[in-house]
Amino acid sequence: MKKFIYADNAATTKLDNDAFEAMKPYLLYEYGNASQPYSFARPAKKALKEARKIIAECINAKPEEIYFTSGGTESDNWAIKGVLLHNVKKDLITSEIEHKAVLNSANFIEKLEHNVKYLRPNSKGIIDPSNLEKNITNNTGLVSIMYANNEIGSIQPIKELCNIAHQKGVLFHTDAVQAIGHIKIDVQELGIDLLSASAHKFNGPKGIGFLYIKSGIDIIPYIDGGSQENSFRGGTENVASIVGMACALKNNCDHIDENFAYIKSLEVEFLKSINGLNFIKNGGQDTLPGNISISFKGKNGESLLHRLDLKGISVSTGSACNSSTMQVSHVLRAIGLNEDYAVGTIRVSFGKENTIEEIHYIANELKKIVNG
Amino acid sequence: MKKFIYADNAATTKLDNDAFEAMKPYLLYEYGNASQPYSFARPAKKALKEARKIIAECINAKPEEIYFTSGGTESDNWAIKGVLLHNVKKDLITSEIEHKAVLNSANFIEKLEHNVKYLRPNSKGIIDPSNLEKNITNNTGLVSIMYANNEIGSIQPIKELCNIAHQKGVLFHTDAVQAIGHIKIDVQELGIDLLSASAHKFNGPKGIGFLYIKSGIDIIPYIDGGSQENSFRGGTENVASIVGMACALKNNCDHIDENFAYIKSLEVEFLKSINGLNFIKNGGQDTLPGNISISFKGKNGESLLHRLDLKGISVSTGSACNSSTMQVSHVLRAIGLNEDYAVGTIRVSFGKENTIEEIHYIANELKKIVNG
Repeated sequence: MKKFIYADNAATTKLDNDAFEAMKPYLLYEYGNASQPYSFARPAKKALKEARKIIAECINAKPEEIYFTSGGTESDNWAIKGVLLHNVKKDLITSEIEHKAVLNSANFIEKLEHNVKYLRPNSKGIIDPSNLEKNITNNTGLVSIMYANNEIGSIQPIKELCNIAHQKGVLFHTDAVQAIGHIKIDVQELGIDLLSASAHKFNGPKGIGFLYIKSGIDIIPYIDGGSQENSFRGGTENVASIVGMACALKNNCDHIDENFAYIKSLEVEFLKSINGLNFIKNGGQDTLPGNISISFKGKNGESLLHRLDLKGISVSTGSACNSSTMQVSHVLRAIGLNEDYAVGTIRVSFGKENTIEEIHYIANELKKIVNG
Repeated sequence: MKKFIYADNAATTKLDNDAFEAMKPYLLYEYGNASQPYSFARPAKKALKEARKIIAECINAKPEEIYFTSGGTESDNWAIKGVLLHNVKKDLITSEIEHKAVLNSANFIEKLEHNVKYLRPNSKGIIDPSNLEKNITNNTGLVSIMYANNEIGSIQPIKELCNIAHQKGVLFHTDAVQAIGHIKIDVQELGIDLLSASAHKFNGPKGIGFLYIKSGIDIIPYIDGGSQENSFRGGTENVASIVGMACALKNNCDHIDENFAYIKSLEVEFLKSINGLNFIKNGGQDTLPGNISISFKGKNGESLLHRLDLKGISVSTGSACNSSTMQVSHVLRAIGLNEDYAVGTIRVSFGKENTIEEIHYIANELKKIVNG
């Protein structure tokens, strides 16, 4: 049998078995519309309430601050447009290394003549809080800086960035799609106003996510419709997926320290194993566990990907979420990576299911390909 | 064991067993991100392509005209805002009996100073095409009229309405959420430009739907993000749910005539069985099969619902999609139903799983409750 190793956990993750089992009743039997008042809808309604509570607890929020969406992309669109299309302070500050969901939402409001500033990170992909401070004006309505980068794994100083925004009376949103379920997030301790999440990045199902909206934040709905989600997000509730998301997030958060340590150990072992090769690890050392962006001078990332694929190994090139568009990633450009290295970049991303044997196999095959 | 009869199929439907089985591999094993280029993602990518083709065939569209969304509500938001926030002709004509997803999207653009006209239906809930014609101006950019009403089941003369819009050079959108999978829809024969659909209304999973966009229609994305859906709808593809939707739609469409005849026979039998009661059937006779809105003078719909619920029967009151807000429905108001009747309205909606015995049981219990 052909070997198969999945090492693209930053693109999407395997659905947690418990999450699948938790979803099944709501797919098969308890299919009542959660907004209906009769008995048959009660299990669905109860499951929805319970899922909201579980998710809230995972990030130290209140249940009523969790709004279910179709995923991280919708959450980002909602946060940015829902605040700024409505606010008197119309301008946005974001970064050059955001996910396309944020960048293209920013682009949309720019066309409507909102001013958008894109902060440039340092060479490790970190946004300097003092640079944020300098760029805030009286018209800044929102700062949107991702929690951790999906390509290079760099983790932002969210608390400091958030504090600076608040000192200037500006709301703070973070796209935490890549981070949540993998590193501890406490929205109260950090002071975050809005946080985007997507279940399939933390072993939940695809097509479901949430937006955390701190109580009292002035935001308008983005998907107008029925009175679901406290009249802030229309559409019949996707109970099965919501239940699956809550289960997966809780399973990850309940073991977050041990998963972190384990996946980081795989990362360390992997980097040690390919130590002889001539490469740059992007994002420095304090990156998301297992999110390893490495650049080989004079190589072609796409070719590396396909040659690894022939060995049964799935990894990414440049952009995390959509590799059908091949070009030097905006993230690698923003951190100033030399083009000779940038085109030779792959992202190997480990998850809790990966084994040390798999890591050695990937390292060995990669060495053969790069040296060959 | 307590009897349980689900008669709220217009609110949501039981997931088709074949659809669940079709979804399972993509939930459990084939979890690759469909936008990734490696082998592991190929089954997901292939399933996506196949699902798009199946769905297109069900409505006689081309596969590239099907855009996956998170459901009917998102599709409606996209159609209306995606056309009108971008078009030089900024005004909308819709009807008073649309779903809240359309009405609240209309309301949103109204606040941005787009003019919106709400056509009033006749007492059977039908929009008069000549009334549409009279209301089109040089600034009308879109007509949005639902295919069939979710509360009273009235079916609109879509072809005539669409023709009139086109004669005046105006695009035509229909919210077909309630109709698709239950009555035949051929987008080419009807000439529709945009059509919204939601899987859970035709025995597919919740949280997934699509927007049909005729080739060449000028529309902007609504969920900005990655290059999924031909760069028109960002977000990692929800492959399992898309596959489930396609399977459910095909199963319904392959048996659409026999399902129609069967469900209509249940409806006829039900109405015959409660013939002695003093009620009005809303929407006339040529309504969606099994979508039965009945109003009892001097009764209270909510109370009828709860008393039926005690007998194990699930039905709706007023609004289809969200009964947590109890008030006389905008649809019953629009068709001019006397308030004495309107407050005493329930919607009993049958599906292909209902049996004639169930119908008799509901009729008998309803008679006891109304007469009691």
